[in-house]
Amino acid sequence: MTEAPAALIGVDWGSSNVRAYLMTGGGTILDAIASADGVATVAPGAFAATFRRLVGGWLDQWPALPVLASGMVGSRNGWREAPYVPCPADARAIAADLLAVEAAGRRVLIVPGLSCESEDGQPDVMRGEEVEILGIATQGARLVVLPGSHCKWVAVDEEEIARFQTFVTGELFAALRDHTLIGAFARTAPMGAPGEAFARGVLRGASAAQGADGSGLIGALFGARSLPLTGKLAEADAGDYLSGLLIGAEIVEARRRFPRENPQVAGASALAQRYLAAFAVLGERASAAPPGAAARGLLVVARQAGLL
Amino acid sequence: MTEAPAALIGVDWGSSNVRAYLMTGGGTILDAIASADGVATVAPGAFAATFRRLVGGWLDQWPALPVLASGMVGSRNGWREAPYVPCPADARAIAADLLAVEAAGRRVLIVPGLSCESEDGQPDVMRGEEVEILGIATQGARLVVLPGSHCKWVAVDEEEIARFQTFVTGELFAALRDHTLIGAFARTAPMGAPGEAFARGVLRGASAAQGADGSGLIGALFGARSLPLTGKLAEADAGDYLSGLLIGAEIVEARRRFPRENPQVAGASALAQRYLAAFAVLGERASAAPPGAAARGLLVVARQAGLL
Repeated sequence: MTEAPAALIGVDWGSSNVRAYLMTGGGTILDAIASADGVATVAPGAFAATFRRLVGGWLDQWPALPVLASGMVGSRNGWREAPYVPCPADARAIAADLLAVEAAGRRVLIVPGLSCESEDGQPDVMRGEEVEILGIATQGARLVVLPGSHCKWVAVDEEEIARFQTFVTGELFAALRDHTLIGAFARTAPMGAPGEAFARGVLRGASAAQGADGSGLIGALFGARSLPLTGKLAEADAGDYLSGLLIGAEIVEARRRFPRENPQVAGASALAQRYLAAFAVLGERASAAPPGAAARGLLVVARQAGLL
Repeated sequence: MTEAPAALIGVDWGSSNVRAYLMTGGGTILDAIASADGVATVAPGAFAATFRRLVGGWLDQWPALPVLASGMVGSRNGWREAPYVPCPADARAIAADLLAVEAAGRRVLIVPGLSCESEDGQPDVMRGEEVEILGIATQGARLVVLPGSHCKWVAVDEEEIARFQTFVTGELFAALRDHTLIGAFARTAPMGAPGEAFARGVLRGASAAQGADGSGLIGALFGARSLPLTGKLAEADAGDYLSGLLIGAEIVEARRRFPRENPQVAGASALAQRYLAAFAVLGERASAAPPGAAARGLLVVARQAGLL
């Protein structure tokens, strides 16, 4: 059996990293490139040159291969701004709005991000995650959680992205830990695998978000200081506790809008492991999403766009 | 009628500032000193010398006058640690636990802070605010709100401090504004008097803390970015909106534990004005606490300690 030929160059181009894939039409990854040339590091006007430097070898070797790029590369600060596609949106709707740019005589198709509006009128946006979700949705997911600075919860209906919401949990944790007095104990505490203090934080954050016992999140946050200060939590556990507190609160909040379905947690990061641990603490059935979602999602969009 | 003689040197010695008062037994302030020699700026072992430098003139002129000091001066990083007095506590209980230190042959009595435990077992502490509250309580207050980095809500019962809780609203606002992507618009926005965007933020924060429309605080925070990003909030209003969001959420949270009573908001700061505006937006009756609370509270403690 001969190896299937390369059929797509897919680029997942985020703020801080780029991952590029040389793929067959069946989704086999023949070659991959990872680099720190994220959108935030590329000067305006330098995207075509950066692109050429990153995947020039593939372009030369495969002069007719289509190129698809997703992520912050399509933002205002990226190569060119690709307007958001409103939810609900499936791969076909997304593929219908690809934005073409030119580099080294080749056409690069940029995948647009998605927009959404919550019941209370708050707008929401994503760029890049939509491709990952399409990659996960092919395997039957109905609720996907993508942990990160801005964690996304996404409802999927028959491979259509129905709606989503952003929770600023990761960014909130970093700002509190690094720049507040209540985060001072957490700042010096080691962060290993989630342990007992994490579980305690998850339960406390969940009750706070529920308003149980007359509590709430802003008040519960003071515990990250007052518990170690009064010897009721080991100082070394303060970071784990604070992390649990925020993730526990997020899960309760998010479950108001995304009830019932068992979540699939995307990514293999330590943070994704924390989310899986938090779901377990709260007695919820959650699973890790299958790996390789971004590459698979790029292939889904490429197919809908007739590139394959 | 001759002027009443000086009867007390009272020092309100916080982390970043010192205010000292030369007072008569009836509470008239004969002289006052304000300085930036807060506890955070004084080297360990240098408190006696700093004290002498600040109020040496009064000490020389009034060789028999009692000296009472409150605030972070009694913390672990202060002059000497004065153990917390548990709530409920009145002026007599606080006066019973004054801690004496020596400086220039004079005795300085340090007022202890208060500790408290909430219904869900979270410990809470204050240092310095208890004196302010005693000063306000003499005028009949039953619920006092002291805005700041760590805002305190305090229930007062017949001039006894019944219980209190800390909300980290101010510190949360600063960390989000100065150190996150969702705070980027707020960071560059001017902060004037609270306006329409503030009111909008208060209402949104209040619904989020109530979990109304399936919302919650961590999700609502993303609005500080997504609303200006999509043109649904002027960029110049982002700071006012974020400030309102957090204060509105705090008020709803705090009202779970401190219902019914009309709050008195302590201090004449711009932040205190924001709290009064937020209470008004939520249809609550709140008033400004009478000024001069710290000096009056020091006098209350001095009387209970038999110093006058």
